[in-house]
Amino acid sequence: MKALEEKILKEGKILPGGVLKIDSFLNHQIDTRFLEEIGAEFARLFPEEVTKILTVEASGISMAVATAKHYDYCPVIFAKKGEAANMSEETYSSKLFSFTRKRDFMANVAKDYLHEGDKVLIIDDFLASGQALKALIDICHQAKAEVVGCGIAVEKVHQSGGDLIRGMGVRVESLARIVRMDDDGIEFAE
Amino acid sequence: MKALEEKILKEGKILPGGVLKIDSFLNHQIDTRFLEEIGAEFARLFPEEVTKILTVEASGISMAVATAKHYDYCPVIFAKKGEAANMSEETYSSKLFSFTRKRDFMANVAKDYLHEGDKVLIIDDFLASGQALKALIDICHQAKAEVVGCGIAVEKVHQSGGDLIRGMGVRVESLARIVRMDDDGIEFAE
Repeated sequence: MKALEEKILKEGKILPGGVLKIDSFLNHQIDTRFLEEIGAEFARLFPEEVTKILTVEASGISMAVATAKHYDYCPVIFAKKGEAANMSEETYSSKLFSFTRKRDFMANVAKDYLHEGDKVLIIDDFLASGQALKALIDICHQAKAEVVGCGIAVEKVHQSGGDLIRGMGVRVESLARIVRMDDDGIEFAE
Repeated sequence: MKALEEKILKEGKILPGGVLKIDSFLNHQIDTRFLEEIGAEFARLFPEEVTKILTVEASGISMAVATAKHYDYCPVIFAKKGEAANMSEETYSSKLFSFTRKRDFMANVAKDYLHEGDKVLIIDDFLASGQALKALIDICHQAKAEVVGCGIAVEKVHQSGGDLIRGMGVRVESLARIVRMDDDGIEFAE
């Protein structure tokens, strides 16, 4: 998605440790007009039937909502982040390690909202290590729901997450794919 | 907003300690079609000029996005929650006490995204103690931005937050106003 690559080049900030910040249009301030384009693009990439969109709080929520309207306003579920000790019988939970926060936490989805027969499109902002996606896929499997695929805004191809998730047989479509990111700038995949 | 009151009566869950859960359509799973109605209603209640919508992660984000389109797709900013020690010179920060989490934390907004001259509509899911709204208003004042008002999904009128915020001279419009909530059910203001 050329428009996203251009926005990353223009507004993205590279922080020490290979962290890309896109706070000006997605992860702190949201460009709500551009968000509509992102939602339409995910819907174009996944023409299959989708009955639920799953993401994780907080940065995935806006994109998930903008995408849902293209699937007849299907429900969006955002997994809640909690402490590892906070599991309950009423939730599907999966552990993930946050490289940003340098600790484990749980992604939790109430069993009430995800069921066998659901066709789930997973949406998230970044794909780097793949930990968050893996946890969301695991939650879908626990619920016996079908994973249609994963729609990602920014994939860091130079990290291993994309291989991990695709290796699980799950289709991943990323709107911008970064192959190199350093002091000289950002390079996208062809 | 009659439709919201009906949804709360039908789907809301009252937990011990006077906690109302609306996880089935707003705070965990999102009814994205209903969300459009909420956005339209906030826009109807605030016909003034609005240049930015401010909320706090995570549950306010979806409503803020659904409302922004009615103000020519203005930007949405979601304040980030952080530890009290996590302040920086680059952010406006305001402390608030979370009754849900039983501890203080900071609401943070990067100075880049809020400026003098901005006309800010604040959106949030619940108004109970008013702590979150007070922090968001404080952040607007720090930025010398104008607060147009606060749009709230559910106000717990039997708590003191509404009085606190209106007492600051800020207009508050709540889509559902609960005057009583106990084992016998929920009663809304006329």
